[in-house]
Amino acid sequence: MNTRIVAALGGNALLRRGEPLTADNQRQNIRGAAKALAPLALEHELVVTHGNGPQVGLLALQSAACKPDEIYPLDILDAETEGMIGYLIEQELINVLPPDRRCATLLTQIVVDRNDPAFKYPTKPIGPVYDESEAKKLAEERNWRIAVDGEYYRRVVASPRPIRILEQSVIDLLVGQGVIVICAGGGGIPVIYRKDGSLVGVEAVIDKDMASSLLAREIQADLLLMLTDVDAVYHNWGETNARAIQRISPRALKAFSFAPGSMAPKVQAAIEFAEQRGGVCIGSLKDAAAIVKGEAGTLISKEMTETVWWD
Amino acid sequence: MNTRIVAALGGNALLRRGEPLTADNQRQNIRGAAKALAPLALEHELVVTHGNGPQVGLLALQSAACKPDEIYPLDILDAETEGMIGYLIEQELINVLPPDRRCATLLTQIVVDRNDPAFKYPTKPIGPVYDESEAKKLAEERNWRIAVDGEYYRRVVASPRPIRILEQSVIDLLVGQGVIVICAGGGGIPVIYRKDGSLVGVEAVIDKDMASSLLAREIQADLLLMLTDVDAVYHNWGETNARAIQRISPRALKAFSFAPGSMAPKVQAAIEFAEQRGGVCIGSLKDAAAIVKGEAGTLISKEMTETVWWD
Repeated sequence: MNTRIVAALGGNALLRRGEPLTADNQRQNIRGAAKALAPLALEHELVVTHGNGPQVGLLALQSAACKPDEIYPLDILDAETEGMIGYLIEQELINVLPPDRRCATLLTQIVVDRNDPAFKYPTKPIGPVYDESEAKKLAEERNWRIAVDGEYYRRVVASPRPIRILEQSVIDLLVGQGVIVICAGGGGIPVIYRKDGSLVGVEAVIDKDMASSLLAREIQADLLLMLTDVDAVYHNWGETNARAIQRISPRALKAFSFAPGSMAPKVQAAIEFAEQRGGVCIGSLKDAAAIVKGEAGTLISKEMTETVWWD
Repeated sequence: MNTRIVAALGGNALLRRGEPLTADNQRQNIRGAAKALAPLALEHELVVTHGNGPQVGLLALQSAACKPDEIYPLDILDAETEGMIGYLIEQELINVLPPDRRCATLLTQIVVDRNDPAFKYPTKPIGPVYDESEAKKLAEERNWRIAVDGEYYRRVVASPRPIRILEQSVIDLLVGQGVIVICAGGGGIPVIYRKDGSLVGVEAVIDKDMASSLLAREIQADLLLMLTDVDAVYHNWGETNARAIQRISPRALKAFSFAPGSMAPKVQAAIEFAEQRGGVCIGSLKDAAAIVKGEAGTLISKEMTETVWWD
């Protein structure tokens, strides 16, 4: 148990693109994720984080479909998805691990700054698209911010920067005792301190990779493993001269640009951890064990003096 | 930190009878619960469990209202409510406690016997009432068991006996380190071992007080505190000669009968803990601190040689 790993499961690693969000589909995909993580859990200290985009969208729709006047705020929906997804991950990990490896799923509140500029300029679209009149009505009735999305309108919420994880010392304690901890699901539940010093949830979404990067720094992890459905970080992704990066320094990585909303925030979160603490690997969930051995994926580390490419 | 207390919050302690299940109402009531528990959290080791009846019913309705063909199974809905309610309890506890008192909310899976007779004879009604044709349709489409409920029909599920708490040793570890643990919400997520030894969730509901009693035994608690909206256990409840019990032995308590579905299961769970381990107190949430001091509520303990009544 020398290496402490934070493994972040991307939304696309938990639900294949276009797949309906049924309980069975989630369980099948999570079973695959647990199998991919098992070799790491056997040899290392392991913390598992995960996305919740499709799930929190579904719960918001369900809440609205049932009683539109009593729609639940995002912090509570986030907490519900930490329950739903965390439970399935824990159960499937138990099924692939020996009985002496204990697992625990912790609800995770992450403090953000109530004056974060993201609250003034919300950018993160969530939920379905609406036509103009519907969008105006919702903006008024529910005090939602609405933005144009192609020909339609969509609710946008703030995606503030995560500052501190309230359960950090509990996570640290458990991981140090060999417990596999599932936490910070969906980027954690965003909370602020009000002026009177009390804590309260806010309607926002914290980027899952930024939350995982913060967590990895706070619990002094050695390795941050970002698992998605792409096998490596590519320079010139989608173009004919696209090349997969094998090893790179955070400094060299900064010189490249990546697709906003998908690889760019991942790379940003990776750079923050790699500059301040340890290595970051980005790659495909199915290759998890190989990635940690350096046999797949992209390694970002300040110890790299030159950039190495996959053939 | 000499006394280890498991405090079980009844559904009626979290939502007043007849009150709409909005996020705000839940938060208000949970804030009151946190204030009532704060004095105990300051002086003792504390584990908090809670009910989820109204919440799991709401999530089932929401799921059905949105996409009736993709309704989520009860184990997943239970996990969602552990997230929703646990989050609010943790946040409001943090707000009333000094910063050095750590809190953690753990998802909790509780093993039941897959051959428990409760699966053959489900008795626990959940969700809304249906008319006959609707009930027949649902029974066929979703493989639900339906029972007559007055003039209507309702879904019934098994309420099997809890056997073992999968996260027991993690809960024990955290409580021993002075962390306030919120767990076993809604009686825990019911799971079974299949014939091949793998774990899977089941469509059932574990009685919250039975789960709390098992937890209290497993983590060797000194006191099980069942908090509800009634100030004590009454003999001849609802009749003119009703009397509130102050102190009683489990043996003497067995001689009395109580309302099935409300006080009877509570008393049964209390007797199991009191016979095997420590004291049990039953009373009103607002009196939590006074109950532990013996100034309110009903104490059930095998050390009692005679029954004492409140005036």
